[in-house]
Amino acid sequence: MTVRAAVAGASGYAGGELLRLLLAHPEVEIGALTGNSNAGQRLGALQPHLLPLAGRVLQETTADVLAGHDVVFLALPHGQSAAVAEQLGPDVLVVDMGADFRLRNAADWERFYGSPHAGTWPYGLPELPGSRSALEGSKRVAVPGCYPTAVSLALFPAYTAGLAEAEAVIVAASGTSGAGKTPKPHLLGSEVMGSMSPYGVGGGHRHTPEMIQNLSAAAGEPVSVSFTPTLAPMPRGILATCSAKARPGVTAESVRAAYEKAFADEPFVHLLPEGQWPATASVHGSNAVHVQVAYDEAAGRVIAVSAIDNLTKGTAGGAVQSMNIALGLDETTGLSTIGVAP
Amino acid sequence: MTVRAAVAGASGYAGGELLRLLLAHPEVEIGALTGNSNAGQRLGALQPHLLPLAGRVLQETTADVLAGHDVVFLALPHGQSAAVAEQLGPDVLVVDMGADFRLRNAADWERFYGSPHAGTWPYGLPELPGSRSALEGSKRVAVPGCYPTAVSLALFPAYTAGLAEAEAVIVAASGTSGAGKTPKPHLLGSEVMGSMSPYGVGGGHRHTPEMIQNLSAAAGEPVSVSFTPTLAPMPRGILATCSAKARPGVTAESVRAAYEKAFADEPFVHLLPEGQWPATASVHGSNAVHVQVAYDEAAGRVIAVSAIDNLTKGTAGGAVQSMNIALGLDETTGLSTIGVAP
Amino acid sequence: MTVRAAVAGASGYAGGELLRLLLAHPEVEIGALTGNSNAGQRLGALQPHLLPLAGRVLQETTADVLAGHDVVFLALPHGQSAAVAEQLGPDVLVVDMGADFRLRNAADWERFYGSPHAGTWPYGLPELPGSRSALEGSKRVAVPGCYPTAVSLALFPAYTAGLAEAEAVIVAASGTSGAGKTPKPHLLGSEVMGSMSPYGVGGGHRHTPEMIQNLSAAAGEPVSVSFTPTLAPMPRGILATCSAKARPGVTAESVRAAYEKAFADEPFVHLLPEGQWPATASVHGSNAVHVQVAYDEAAGRVIAVSAIDNLTKGTAGGAVQSMNIALGLDETTGLSTIGVAP
Amino acid sequence: MTVRAAVAGASGYAGGELLRLLLAHPEVEIGALTGNSNAGQRLGALQPHLLPLAGRVLQETTADVLAGHDVVFLALPHGQSAAVAEQLGPDVLVVDMGADFRLRNAADWERFYGSPHAGTWPYGLPELPGSRSALEGSKRVAVPGCYPTAVSLALFPAYTAGLAEAEAVIVAASGTSGAGKTPKPHLLGSEVMGSMSPYGVGGGHRHTPEMIQNLSAAAGEPVSVSFTPTLAPMPRGILATCSAKARPGVTAESVRAAYEKAFADEPFVHLLPEGQWPATASVHGSNAVHVQVAYDEAAGRVIAVSAIDNLTKGTAGGAVQSMNIALGLDETTGLSTIGVAP
Repeated sequence: MTVRAAVAGASGYAGGELLRLLLAHPEVEIGALTGNSNAGQRLGALQPHLLPLAGRVLQETTADVLAGHDVVFLALPHGQSAAVAEQLGPDVLVVDMGADFRLRNAADWERFYGSPHAGTWPYGLPELPGSRSALEGSKRVAVPGCYPTAVSLALFPAYTAGLAEAEAVIVAASGTSGAGKTPKPHLLGSEVMGSMSPYGVGGGHRHTPEMIQNLSAAAGEPVSVSFTPTLAPMPRGILATCSAKARPGVTAESVRAAYEKAFADEPFVHLLPEGQWPATASVHGSNAVHVQVAYDEAAGRVIAVSAIDNLTKGTAGGAVQSMNIALGLDETTGLSTIGVAP
Repeated sequence: MTVRAAVAGASGYAGGELLRLLLAHPEVEIGALTGNSNAGQRLGALQPHLLPLAGRVLQETTADVLAGHDVVFLALPHGQSAAVAEQLGPDVLVVDMGADFRLRNAADWERFYGSPHAGTWPYGLPELPGSRSALEGSKRVAVPGCYPTAVSLALFPAYTAGLAEAEAVIVAASGTSGAGKTPKPHLLGSEVMGSMSPYGVGGGHRHTPEMIQNLSAAAGEPVSVSFTPTLAPMPRGILATCSAKARPGVTAESVRAAYEKAFADEPFVHLLPEGQWPATASVHGSNAVHVQVAYDEAAGRVIAVSAIDNLTKGTAGGAVQSMNIALGLDETTGLSTIGVAP
Repeated sequence: MTVRAAVAGASGYAGGELLRLLLAHPEVEIGALTGNSNAGQRLGALQPHLLPLAGRVLQETTADVLAGHDVVFLALPHGQSAAVAEQLGPDVLVVDMGADFRLRNAADWERFYGSPHAGTWPYGLPELPGSRSALEGSKRVAVPGCYPTAVSLALFPAYTAGLAEAEAVIVAASGTSGAGKTPKPHLLGSEVMGSMSPYGVGGGHRHTPEMIQNLSAAAGEPVSVSFTPTLAPMPRGILATCSAKARPGVTAESVRAAYEKAFADEPFVHLLPEGQWPATASVHGSNAVHVQVAYDEAAGRVIAVSAIDNLTKGTAGGAVQSMNIALGLDETTGLSTIGVAP
Repeated sequence: MTVRAAVAGASGYAGGELLRLLLAHPEVEIGALTGNSNAGQRLGALQPHLLPLAGRVLQETTADVLAGHDVVFLALPHGQSAAVAEQLGPDVLVVDMGADFRLRNAADWERFYGSPHAGTWPYGLPELPGSRSALEGSKRVAVPGCYPTAVSLALFPAYTAGLAEAEAVIVAASGTSGAGKTPKPHLLGSEVMGSMSPYGVGGGHRHTPEMIQNLSAAAGEPVSVSFTPTLAPMPRGILATCSAKARPGVTAESVRAAYEKAFADEPFVHLLPEGQWPATASVHGSNAVHVQVAYDEAAGRVIAVSAIDNLTKGTAGGAVQSMNIALGLDETTGLSTIGVAP
């Protein structure tokens, strides 16, 4: 099978990472590349690490340019995907790396994004129970947010196994690429190197309702989420420290068993041996998720920690993984579980 | 007043930071400097940033060398302070920057450190209710751990004001200097740059009982603490994200009011204006603590975040602050609230 | 003496560092603070590390606002200082931290900056032979560029002692704060962390003519300069590696002797003991310059390396040092040779 | 073809990077993995980023363990390769990633390494004129040092084209992984983050004679090399800034033409478009070399800058590239020119 793929938004970090992965994908041929404010520029000037594509020139994001592909990846600012997707027709696989189609609840969307809800597409986190079947053969995929990917994979086994109370507390550290490539003062190297700082504290981060959606589905009841994201002095990676009060009767063994079972057949999620904890460097550039879990008896909490690369499994790798499923390819095609470390 | 000060353990990070502060202290004259494995070496080879002391040579840590000073600071491996302190006599001010005399509960000490408990000294976190009076005129001071400093200052107002349930959940990121200067593979620059990782998860970190001690005293009841420390790719700084379930009736206003009241007269703890969150870079090299707090109504939690420099307020600055109080000097003498940023 | 100082351009990195130093200066009282695009904002929102000034509000940069001070520091974009200085009158000490008055040769200015030359003021690098006398009592000071500070101090002794041929080759690494606080894509944390890159290669950097001016004066003949600046993944610091072909008869001993003599009485320039090389971390936040020099017999070159903090000795510290001289204060007042490390 | 490969020294950075590349090599099957002090440990504990090999256990480095492979890679401390290679027999391809067989001049070896010279093997830098033919079919390969790789590729075209005088001045910045995984105080994250420092200044670095060997061969006459390596606050990457005095008649055009010609058919060396300079981030994890060159007319010098990943093209990627040639595979098999950025 040769899959012809277009990328709308090829000049940003998500688009660049997607191209890095597609270049290594044996079934994909890279077609049109677009980028509005950068249309007309050589990709080599914008993404110098993508040497094989250095001579390609970005085009405008129009229906004509995107026509004639088997797959179109959208890496656009939120609110723009619906209009583009409509023009592409129902037979093209559209993989939206933005937020537009992730939430099921229109009110959540409107509260956090302040615009009308565009709809809900099959959710591209195959490891969540029930997700794979919705992705198989689908022509539309909503790629999860980076934080919800890390958090949902760390915590869902505790909820599906009934180990945890429905109040999750999450503190996550993210590399700066998660904040995108648009220059802003607080994202300057001078500001972020040597500094850790939180943002969107107190429930304000737009990824919160997506976490609630995923964890509530796993628990079978509404789960509240206290989520504090922090900006870490590194370009990539998310370390999510997630905990919830243990239900009565929980033991270290029952926690371990639940996580072993949940990830036993997962190609990308790796439960580390007991005593070894995840480090984001180990998944740098990889689609792997490293997870560890502990039961803190004194505090009465289950604590799960996951490490992902926010741009790979957290965005572009997740997109390719879901594309593979949607197209009937082997889910792991073109994706690696090997990190670039140190 | 001229205070003659000796520093036992001058070659490590805590000792170096202490010397940096003592050099700027108008009432202190720096006396003997010791360092066992480095005895005989020039300080300029070990701490090249301390230019005015470059020519000083480290001596062995013996009672003779440390005799004849008004203050002796101990920056020794845990378990070694008691023997040294005994030899110094009761009239010398001994400020222990190690862990030996922080805990009141001998069983806690033995469980976490595996050795007999040396005793309990007045606790050098003056901002905690009741602490200043115990420090005034004292000849013994136990300097708090870096994490307990950041965490206790972030959370005690919520407990003294009765705003929070007695179960605290804390995730903190620390710069690597907190792990000391002894070379270990996981502390290599190659390993830590670009990586975040947790350690001591599930209640295993030795600073946990110290946090429990402080927060329980503030709450007037036992507070459980779930504490997850993480290693961040920066040399200095702690960002502590602390939360607890809000008690019924709590509002954003009552939370803000409690924190404003708690820190109103504190020279080093600064409650940031609403909406502005702490960043460790802002307190780099400073004795200041930046704190912000929010009430997350949806999750029902009070979330407080503090930023400190682990070596300054978290260790050596806290030591100097307590020395000032013990000696009857103005508490802020020789200490700055200005960070070195960016 | 109480010196009342105004700072025009207080929101940038140079202005912020200057304020950090002025807050510690025993003879200075901080007056008006201005910042055009940020006028009306609290300094606490822009420079949160300057806690004692957090409540100060920036004003517009006008003659009225700047009037009534003993010293006015200008941290303005190049080309703007002359107009402001004229309005301040001849009796106010004006210290220009920009480039406008550094060059003696109008043609050099016009070629590198593309605008008419504003003039030449006494040059604020007191360590250069003959500089101190020109600064004493002066009402105008041109603060050197950060790279020329590091390079000139590393190499001038080789030229004044006649040890080196008149062709200098310089490669310098700078922290990102040297590029300022205006957000640009290549200065994003995501771009600079984990990366080294050169810029302005081949003689294009505006600091080149300033280096030529200083080194030629030291040599008593025109010195050519090949200068390659590189951007390093750190917020502060310059490491300048400078070399020139050794003249016949040069020995390791003659090189060492020349440098020892040049810096013997300098309070801020420190020639490290033989075998110890400078590291930028050692001068972080300090006005010190660490220098080391070697004679590579096989390659026939004198190699001198200096480390400075680009914002301190390279900008704001150099400005304060020159202010002290101009005002007749002790040159070291309010300035430290102690770095904040690690 | 299936090539069975063993790796002696699999626990270090060079060995880990080699395994990362071999896992992606379509013709290689990974056989024995050894590591003396770490023998008996799971690779997952030492190299957690190599998930597919996590369960493999390291063996001792003995002839028996290494027997029965088509290729044996040696990532051993210098001085140990000869003894191991002898035991493997003449029909096994031995690729030495250490220094033992790089130098042709025994006196150079003895002066820089202080031990008897083991010999000289075909030199694994295929891009150097004449190198490929020596590698084809060879059963022994000496992989170049990381700095000599970056420097030789940046400068040899200037010498083969007769553009430059025979005195090269080189300043290079390296990520910390080049210094290996053995913990030493100056390599701690606390020391290297935020700091740049030189080492081995004045001709002392062991890579200097290797550079001289390569550049002299290109020039057809002895080239002197002034080489200053610096340690940069990043885990990977080398940026080499190399210059030499231009010969009479050199122009910007002749320089450009020489470099375009030299790299026209090279799959891994990429001469960037004029005006675009290399950044190490662009080659992170890639076997590509980014090069740019300029003629500084005022200073009369040719300046060439190269960026490589010290662990990939600078060590393990170079090893695989030479293995491919030695085995008659396509030179690019299993190697990528795509960096992992940002």
